[in-house]
Amino acid sequence: MNVLQGPLHGITVIDLTRVLAGPYCTMMLADLGARVIKIENPGKGDDSRQVGPFVDGESAYFASVNRNKSSIALDLKADVDRAVLERMLEGADVLVENFRAGVMDKLGYTWEMLRQRYPRLVYASISGFGQTGPYRNRPAYDMVVQAMGGLMSVTGEPDGNPARVGVSIGDIGAGLYATIGIQAALLRRATTGVGERVDISMLDCQVALLENPIARFSATGTVPKPLGTRHPSITPFDMFATQDGFVVIAVGNDALFERLCNALDRPEWIADPRFASVPARNEHHAALKACLEGRLREARTANWEAVLEAAGVPHGPLNGVPEIMENAHVSARHMLLDVPIGGDRTLRVSGNPIKIGEAWQGSAVRRAPRLDEDREALLGEFGT
Amino acid sequence: MNVLQGPLHGITVIDLTRVLAGPYCTMMLADLGARVIKIENPGKGDDSRQVGPFVDGESAYFASVNRNKSSIALDLKADVDRAVLERMLEGADVLVENFRAGVMDKLGYTWEMLRQRYPRLVYASISGFGQTGPYRNRPAYDMVVQAMGGLMSVTGEPDGNPARVGVSIGDIGAGLYATIGIQAALLRRATTGVGERVDISMLDCQVALLENPIARFSATGTVPKPLGTRHPSITPFDMFATQDGFVVIAVGNDALFERLCNALDRPEWIADPRFASVPARNEHHAALKACLEGRLREARTANWEAVLEAAGVPHGPLNGVPEIMENAHVSARHMLLDVPIGGDRTLRVSGNPIKIGEAWQGSAVRRAPRLDEDREALLGEFGT
Repeated sequence: MNVLQGPLHGITVIDLTRVLAGPYCTMMLADLGARVIKIENPGKGDDSRQVGPFVDGESAYFASVNRNKSSIALDLKADVDRAVLERMLEGADVLVENFRAGVMDKLGYTWEMLRQRYPRLVYASISGFGQTGPYRNRPAYDMVVQAMGGLMSVTGEPDGNPARVGVSIGDIGAGLYATIGIQAALLRRATTGVGERVDISMLDCQVALLENPIARFSATGTVPKPLGTRHPSITPFDMFATQDGFVVIAVGNDALFERLCNALDRPEWIADPRFASVPARNEHHAALKACLEGRLREARTANWEAVLEAAGVPHGPLNGVPEIMENAHVSARHMLLDVPIGGDRTLRVSGNPIKIGEAWQGSAVRRAPRLDEDREALLGEFGT
Repeated sequence: MNVLQGPLHGITVIDLTRVLAGPYCTMMLADLGARVIKIENPGKGDDSRQVGPFVDGESAYFASVNRNKSSIALDLKADVDRAVLERMLEGADVLVENFRAGVMDKLGYTWEMLRQRYPRLVYASISGFGQTGPYRNRPAYDMVVQAMGGLMSVTGEPDGNPARVGVSIGDIGAGLYATIGIQAALLRRATTGVGERVDISMLDCQVALLENPIARFSATGTVPKPLGTRHPSITPFDMFATQDGFVVIAVGNDALFERLCNALDRPEWIADPRFASVPARNEHHAALKACLEGRLREARTANWEAVLEAAGVPHGPLNGVPEIMENAHVSARHMLLDVPIGGDRTLRVSGNPIKIGEAWQGSAVRRAPRLDEDREALLGEFGT
């Protein structure tokens, strides 16, 4: 394997997606080495090109999730452009779209038609509610599925309003599950020789992410609610005040709890029956938090970070985006990439967290394409 | 393809993972049809077996993410048990572990050793900070990476404390990216014949999820903060008060905004220059929210749901876990599974959101294994 060649080198993806769930999926595939040809509406292109903030007139929102793709504008209702798409599909491995369910059928691209004409094609659809079920024709965006899927109902302050997760986990979650589905279908194709239909519903993905609240409700009948920064079943797993700020401590088992008590010079807590096991600590979480904060307020965060580090107790600071941008470990992991945008500006965006072999250390990144930027080259290859 | 056979049928996964990030990954692989052999510590097994709530003595936390796996207890420091593991690895496709970086090396299972002895093996490690970089030896749990990776800094009420995402997105996110990495390496292996090392860092995955706040900060220099329920760049994308509750509305482009204004019988908002584009609406989000809530408070949520549905405007209710458990669409999508647990109880858990072909409609689910439940059968197959 060429160390600079991604593991999906040789896979061609025809990308009809826009905004976030679909583009996030195809960015993952592109980051892993697939060739991704993005097909956009003539005129405005992907909706997210209109979403700010902008750098020299280019959308940072768009630039963040469309690197490593080429772009061509095609009108899928015009015969000449449909012929280009269909020539692309002849050699393609994957077709991805995130229209509302039914739109592809109206365009004449049903799964029945696609599977007959392109038997090796993996066809993935990402939609708000999936291709089946009573809500299948309803439109959705991230906000709708975060609310309908219950994640907002368990996020936020206790007794406060629900909070939206601060990133579009409704979209990104669906993009991740879709990527898994597409690769699973490609692996299956290696055996069977034929492609499969992958049907991803954003709401389904939220329900999947909610696995623990669902299991807790099913086991106890108690409705899961927002808990601020506390974990519902593991204690101490929370943010704690120190003399000058906060520190996060995450202690998931008895051995770590012993280490924590010893590190804080409070060995008597180990023998305290209220704190003797994960379930006991969870029941007495308020008492334990009072004990811990009583001690932690005696010194500064930096002191406790050194103490906890020496003791091997999982802990960390609360970082905002600026701290992440300057973090030496994040840099060492190549998790921030500088991609050109606008005139001569670059935009720093998050990198690919999937580190396979050595390829990730030297991968070149192509900036997000301008609308229709690759028309000439792509028509040369796929035009008539 | 047998319609009841998952796309990863024929893939064998040796699973040394525990708690959540690793087990979530191997559950995805198992749900997709892989054979997953879970290897646990003799005595207590996976730490999460001790995490409540419990049903007839069995952990619901464990049961929710360990279905479709078999279990054997092996002491990886004892020669006789190491021999069993090594015989399993001879025929395996994937080895997954989520120990702290360095633990596998100390056990003698370095990547150099594994690749030489099992050249087709894909070896995936999930750890707090990855196998490289200055933090590589630090321990981490979900709470730590949610805090260090910045997601908490953008979640919660404006001007309030940061909030933890109400599910363990630090773990589940890493599990999803790991699953993508493993499948990418398997696809590569189909070409090269050799396995790859997959190195997943929970912190990297948080940085990847933070793509939009990072791009916004990079473009503007403004530090992203919690916004309650509002989207940072798209307006109206929020929760709004009605006469008797709330409704979520997600309008991502101008055409939908026109539909919304007409549906609410307020066409004059369409021409209002403050609301003329996504960036303009975003700048005047407070004014627009006041307009919208002024109108929405005139009637009940049920009324507005009908109005918005008829107009094709993306919207939805705020659901808690109980509403999800009773939702007809969620059921129709097979997103809730009843798996046996404890004596004669069943636990309702979230299903697999990756719908490929027809397999998902009839897939049988094996309950999570008891510790060492499959010892006899597995020793018959892999013992000496």
